[in-house]
Amino acid sequence: MTDSAKTDPSRPRKLSDVKQWDRETDVAIVGLGGAGGCAAIEAADGGAEVIVFEVASAGGGSTALSSAEIYMGGSGGTRVQQACGFEDSTEDMVTYMMMAAGPQADEAKIRNYCEQSSGHFQWLVDIGVPFKDSFHEERAIMCLTDDCLLYTGSEKAWPFAQHAKPCPRGHNLQVEGDNGGPLLMKILLENVARRDAITVEYETRALTLIVDDDGAVAGLVVRQDQHELNVRARQGVILCAGGFVMNEDMVRKYAPMLTAGNTPIGNPGDTGTGILMGMAVGGAAINMHEGFISLPYYPPADMTRGIVVNDKGQRFINEDVYHGRLGAFVLRQPAERMYFIVTVAQYGDYEKVSYLGAPVAGTGETVAELEEELGLRAGSLQHTIKVYNEDCARGEDTLYHKAGEWLTALEPPLVALDITPGRGAFLPYFTLGGLDTRPTGQVLNTQGEVVPGLYAAGRTACGVVRRAEGYSSGMSVGDATFSGRMAGREAAQAPRS
Amino acid sequence: MTDSAKTDPSRPRKLSDVKQWDRETDVAIVGLGGAGGCAAIEAADGGAEVIVFEVASAGGGSTALSSAEIYMGGSGGTRVQQACGFEDSTEDMVTYMMMAAGPQADEAKIRNYCEQSSGHFQWLVDIGVPFKDSFHEERAIMCLTDDCLLYTGSEKAWPFAQHAKPCPRGHNLQVEGDNGGPLLMKILLENVARRDAITVEYETRALTLIVDDDGAVAGLVVRQDQHELNVRARQGVILCAGGFVMNEDMVRKYAPMLTAGNTPIGNPGDTGTGILMGMAVGGAAINMHEGFISLPYYPPADMTRGIVVNDKGQRFINEDVYHGRLGAFVLRQPAERMYFIVTVAQYGDYEKVSYLGAPVAGTGETVAELEEELGLRAGSLQHTIKVYNEDCARGEDTLYHKAGEWLTALEPPLVALDITPGRGAFLPYFTLGGLDTRPTGQVLNTQGEVVPGLYAAGRTACGVVRRAEGYSSGMSVGDATFSGRMAGREAAQAPRS
Repeated sequence: MTDSAKTDPSRPRKLSDVKQWDRETDVAIVGLGGAGGCAAIEAADGGAEVIVFEVASAGGGSTALSSAEIYMGGSGGTRVQQACGFEDSTEDMVTYMMMAAGPQADEAKIRNYCEQSSGHFQWLVDIGVPFKDSFHEERAIMCLTDDCLLYTGSEKAWPFAQHAKPCPRGHNLQVEGDNGGPLLMKILLENVARRDAITVEYETRALTLIVDDDGAVAGLVVRQDQHELNVRARQGVILCAGGFVMNEDMVRKYAPMLTAGNTPIGNPGDTGTGILMGMAVGGAAINMHEGFISLPYYPPADMTRGIVVNDKGQRFINEDVYHGRLGAFVLRQPAERMYFIVTVAQYGDYEKVSYLGAPVAGTGETVAELEEELGLRAGSLQHTIKVYNEDCARGEDTLYHKAGEWLTALEPPLVALDITPGRGAFLPYFTLGGLDTRPTGQVLNTQGEVVPGLYAAGRTACGVVRRAEGYSSGMSVGDATFSGRMAGREAAQAPRS
Repeated sequence: MTDSAKTDPSRPRKLSDVKQWDRETDVAIVGLGGAGGCAAIEAADGGAEVIVFEVASAGGGSTALSSAEIYMGGSGGTRVQQACGFEDSTEDMVTYMMMAAGPQADEAKIRNYCEQSSGHFQWLVDIGVPFKDSFHEERAIMCLTDDCLLYTGSEKAWPFAQHAKPCPRGHNLQVEGDNGGPLLMKILLENVARRDAITVEYETRALTLIVDDDGAVAGLVVRQDQHELNVRARQGVILCAGGFVMNEDMVRKYAPMLTAGNTPIGNPGDTGTGILMGMAVGGAAINMHEGFISLPYYPPADMTRGIVVNDKGQRFINEDVYHGRLGAFVLRQPAERMYFIVTVAQYGDYEKVSYLGAPVAGTGETVAELEEELGLRAGSLQHTIKVYNEDCARGEDTLYHKAGEWLTALEPPLVALDITPGRGAFLPYFTLGGLDTRPTGQVLNTQGEVVPGLYAAGRTACGVVRRAEGYSSGMSVGDATFSGRMAGREAAQAPRS
């Protein structure tokens, strides 16, 4: 590398080009969000000296911006699940998460996650994360009370419920309002601060990795105060730098499906740097095309009683699924318009409580009137609603298997919301691709072999959740905190180079 | 690298570790299929000394296994298009190919392809490829006569025809039967053999690239007769090693959608080695999740008059599209069964001439009878066919816009074929992801910068075609031959290192 070459994530620095070490530590961590925080704590508790480099002026990452529901269960149930009367088997949790991840599921990673999930709950409790032994029954995207347990996915919906016994696994922190993320990060950062073995350097940008002649990662280059520093990491570097949802070029190139969304969810640092740094030293980036994309159509929960139709007036999904699954199915529909149709009663306080923001596309005193107003073929919506209402009367959705509790005949007057992507509805999205890792967080190359000295966790890694259609709230922060711990623990056990 | 480390595509060899050169050339090419053959010819004609390394005992690659239709047009039309009375504008061709590629389209690459397409036709003619000035009118997947021009995509179908004036662009070689691929490769190989500047080494496997300290590609390592040879390439290495459809692990990891298919299309060497070699030196692999997956439902062409329905009895596509588009839409349908429904007359000689192999799922003297036999909800298929037949009577497919020429009312008796993936129908597939390249064939890294000394073409690169839903026959061999030429030409102009 010539001196004039710029330092970017695609160009690892050679160990032989490093003239001096500006920092030396056992474990270097990039990013102080949920993954980085947990990695630092575990690495320190495992006996390692740790430096965390965070590009922002404070820790938090995307976890601090989230609701911080945490997807946990199995092993008979967490303390909260048990207190609320739910018994949760590891196998049911594995089955659900395998179905959720689809053909690209990483079974070893999912098994490890589920088998250690109730232990992860206890670890969080031990470091001070408060969970109340209470169940939030109402269908919600997030819990605005300080209650803990809620259904946050499609556990009760077809086809998941037919294969895995439903159990609520979303654990909300004991805090009023949508404040779980800030509280979780506050606790993690306090734990970080309490450990003498951990140093945090803020406003420090990770630029690229340093590799030795054998391709092993020996450290990284960071920029601080306009200076490049060479950081030696004797036991390894853990990349916890988030995903790439804020990198428009990468999204277009790797996850074009997500360009249908309109609101990237993440923090400004989610530019893919961690993934690119890993790729540049041989790490395999997988599942890069997938992302979470959602139509958050509840609350109000009664929206679940409505139906979703395409521009042929056809339903195409059981409307009691998780909102991300609806988003994924909407994107897969070959249709130019899509509508959410509810009765005026179900519409209720939609305008006040909904996150969806979908504009009203039409209303009708009769189905025929609405059909015409929407420009649907005469008879199409009438046929769909006739069939649906017959099924509601029988208490069985014969076509899409929406659960009986949500089946209410659609009696006019009706309201249709335009949920077509690009027509006003809120379509949040984030990426689900990243570096291929072992359950330990060790980064794998394209041959499935470990890249020595390199770990990844959180969204920089490709974790347990791999598709919008199987996503459940709590899987991101669950995976970030858990995979961060795994990587921190593993790195702390590595020999010092 | 230690001596004991095995040589695999994920581990580039360092130039400083090369003790001797076993071969030296200007341009080294990996793979002698359509892309490699064209690259070799252009590189030699550009003044370079060339060695081609081919793992098989003979040249051919996947091109030799194909029908070798070649997608060409624009600039007013090729000689054949003009002779057959078709005027083809470059803009229409660009528009069609941009729609075909979707949000991940590479406009610069598509424009370059279209602008030079009629020139590419002439180049092929000049090296001896025979095309007859004749039009094959019948709807077909391949032309079994020696006629040349045919529609090989969705040019005449909605929504393409509404945006780009339809024109046939599939050019079939002047040869009887499905023998275009062998003939094309025979001609390319004769051209290769005729050029003294080109040496071909068969039964030689490319193992990994050789890079200098600045990350520039200086050559490659090959294995021949159980010996590893270091090959110096003064002007560059061109990877023309095909895609990764034969690498089950890579398909599962990168293109899980394709696991729904049952017949990988390619040659045994399509194991992704070229892509992996490129990735290991910093090349960005893009569009890796996408592939061609098809339900080849015609011939008989009259199948186009039938309808495709899901397990709700709903249609979901205009059935006059290219068969790959149908395959893509079938995969996107959230359904457990899918059927192709035709009249007994339309079924015709299906059993004799079809490639589809879909089993008969039911027959009915009435629609109600068929509906029941298929286990569809009572009234569902009846509603769909009633609507369809009304539209046929009016001559307008109001829902899916199938072209008027294919609209014939479905009058019982009817036959339903089970086209559900995994239930017997032939679902061929191949990959559409590869190394990101400039139109010149120069490989780009994740920052969009050129990896010096490295080129890719054919399926090893991510070419002009990016999705099954926009695929048209002839785009693969068209892209392979054209991109091979671009890369060969560019490499021959590079300075000798």
